[in-house]
Amino acid sequence: MAKSKKKKSGRIAIVVSRFNEEVTGGLLKGAVEVLQENKYSEKDYDVVHCPGAFEIPLAAKHLCQSGKYCGVVCLGAVIKGETAHFEFISYAVTHGLLQLNLEYGIPVSFGVLTCYNDEQAVKRSSADAHNKGREAASAVIDMISLIKTI
Amino acid sequence: MAKSKKKKSGRIAIVVSRFNEEVTGGLLKGAVEVLQENKYSEKDYDVVHCPGAFEIPLAAKHLCQSGKYCGVVCLGAVIKGETAHFEFISYAVTHGLLQLNLEYGIPVSFGVLTCYNDEQAVKRSSADAHNKGREAASAVIDMISLIKTI
Amino acid sequence: MAKSKKKKSGRIAIVVSRFNEEVTGGLLKGAVEVLQENKYSEKDYDVVHCPGAFEIPLAAKHLCQSGKYCGVVCLGAVIKGETAHFEFISYAVTHGLLQLNLEYGIPVSFGVLTCYNDEQAVKRSSADAHNKGREAASAVIDMISLIKTI
Amino acid sequence: MAKSKKKKSGRIAIVVSRFNEEVTGGLLKGAVEVLQENKYSEKDYDVVHCPGAFEIPLAAKHLCQSGKYCGVVCLGAVIKGETAHFEFISYAVTHGLLQLNLEYGIPVSFGVLTCYNDEQAVKRSSADAHNKGREAASAVIDMISLIKTI
Amino acid sequence: MAKSKKKKSGRIAIVVSRFNEEVTGGLLKGAVEVLQENKYSEKDYDVVHCPGAFEIPLAAKHLCQSGKYCGVVCLGAVIKGETAHFEFISYAVTHGLLQLNLEYGIPVSFGVLTCYNDEQAVKRSSADAHNKGREAASAVIDMISLIKTI
Repeated sequence: MAKSKKKKSGRIAIVVSRFNEEVTGGLLKGAVEVLQENKYSEKDYDVVHCPGAFEIPLAAKHLCQSGKYCGVVCLGAVIKGETAHFEFISYAVTHGLLQLNLEYGIPVSFGVLTCYNDEQAVKRSSADAHNKGREAASAVIDMISLIKTI
Repeated sequence: MAKSKKKKSGRIAIVVSRFNEEVTGGLLKGAVEVLQENKYSEKDYDVVHCPGAFEIPLAAKHLCQSGKYCGVVCLGAVIKGETAHFEFISYAVTHGLLQLNLEYGIPVSFGVLTCYNDEQAVKRSSADAHNKGREAASAVIDMISLIKTI
Repeated sequence: MAKSKKKKSGRIAIVVSRFNEEVTGGLLKGAVEVLQENKYSEKDYDVVHCPGAFEIPLAAKHLCQSGKYCGVVCLGAVIKGETAHFEFISYAVTHGLLQLNLEYGIPVSFGVLTCYNDEQAVKRSSADAHNKGREAASAVIDMISLIKTI
Repeated sequence: MAKSKKKKSGRIAIVVSRFNEEVTGGLLKGAVEVLQENKYSEKDYDVVHCPGAFEIPLAAKHLCQSGKYCGVVCLGAVIKGETAHFEFISYAVTHGLLQLNLEYGIPVSFGVLTCYNDEQAVKRSSADAHNKGREAASAVIDMISLIKTI
Repeated sequence: MAKSKKKKSGRIAIVVSRFNEEVTGGLLKGAVEVLQENKYSEKDYDVVHCPGAFEIPLAAKHLCQSGKYCGVVCLGAVIKGETAHFEFISYAVTHGLLQLNLEYGIPVSFGVLTCYNDEQAVKRSSADAHNKGREAASAVIDMISLIKTI
């Protein structure tokens, strides 16, 4: 868990997908907690909601392109169902977010759960140290600091 | 299901592949329903048909490039057969549509079924809440709205 | 099977790989049949031969780049052997042909078999409706027409 | 193990992720040893720390872009857990580092463990010839030399 | 096996990785044999050695970029070990070489073994018709000729 009190460094955006909303809501809570622990107040970050994980890269791209943010926290949940949808959507969001990192040079974190079942997703979005939204927010904050030193 | 009555925002294109036509026809019906529920009349959207799922990215690219549309709903059905064709075609259409989102900055949705058998495809293209064409159209409409706010 | 008598629209190239030549020869026959059924005479298309499936994207790229063709039919056969060669070559040709579609904006079809055994490859290259060379040629012809309408 | 005493050739950067820190610490030790064996002193290389493997490509990109380094050693550890996170993160860091090699033309090595369990990771980060951090540092040094000859 | 006596057409580069050196040495022998059978003398080709398969794309990129070669034969051996390293390295070298083909427009062949065990690698690098180094050299020579005709 990110406990360091880093200096604020520009605004942060959070993209969160609505699909599996209870899970992604938990991730969002975790991410916001970390921002607040790091002295980001509500006016220091924006939250945008998109339909599903496949839409996260497009939303994140517009956030990157806007020039208003120095980092984008991406939160979503892809859960294995009966079909192969899981594998391809997970691939798309992974590849898309990677590309945005390399294209825009700002941290676009991967707080997207890729779980084999609901239990795994619940566990990783609960209000505790396992919350992957916390991890994703923390990664963005750390990378913002790191990039300034390079 | 998309029930919100969003304001119309430019024209929408739908690409639908003919392979597994009964299934993709069901997806198309679902997508059109959602557009109509959201006050898109017949002159507000165009439907183009392409042969199979591998051709969807090229068709969608031309639709993006035309500048006439603010979103493209992509509908197709890839079903596991005896060979590995399923995996590679599914990969190609996933990657292609992702790239179009990132290149053109408009929503190009992934309403492409990637199913292990026919039953799964039928279920996801039927006239009910499971219809993935509805979901894909809904995603495009939501993303058009979202992008305007960023 | 493509039975429609579409108007000729520029020249077409066919790339066919030599590896598994009996199979790819069958695909070529099927593709040529479809071109002829659609009133393409021998001077309306060119056939080039490359060594294996990995070389198809490079050959197709040069055909696209030449500006002489409005579509490229790609034919090959990758068959699972003892190693993982199958998976990686199949990936490469799939990704490469997708990229050419998106880069040049002309149809570059995927008539490449990705089979688990020889029987599957023979079946899909025989002189009947299952012939995937027919399907690939047909896809190119259909897409040439479609693109003109967008 | 790299035992050759190559001539120093510009500065080297090391990126190491903190996730699975005991393992990545071992990789770092191995990499630094190789640099020192090759007559790089402490002022000849910089070490930067990033949160997890997904962040390595972004950190490496900034190091490449800075123009201060002629090679980047990338160290991380992805270990299979309960979900599919392993597969997608491993893919992202692999693809990202490959892209940096091709974009910047300097060696960006892949010292990222992709293990099925902790034991495998421990074994490959121990202070012996199996240490993959040694291998990654060695690869960068070798490639710096090689590139000069082309 | 390439038995055709094609006219020499510019210089050729060979990249060969050292990892699994006995195997890659066999591939190199096979590739050189084919060049000589096709009337390439020692001054008509250069051989460069890189550490492992992940480094092949970077070495090949510099060879392409140098403008001195009309084709690059790439030789390596990735063999499944205990971890997932095999899958990701194989992916990287496959994708990297494909991209070089499409970016530089010259043949960059895939003479990289992706084997599940040592026996498979030995078999495909022995001094006989199964040697994949022969196949890779042959593919480059064939593609150099083919490209001239397009």
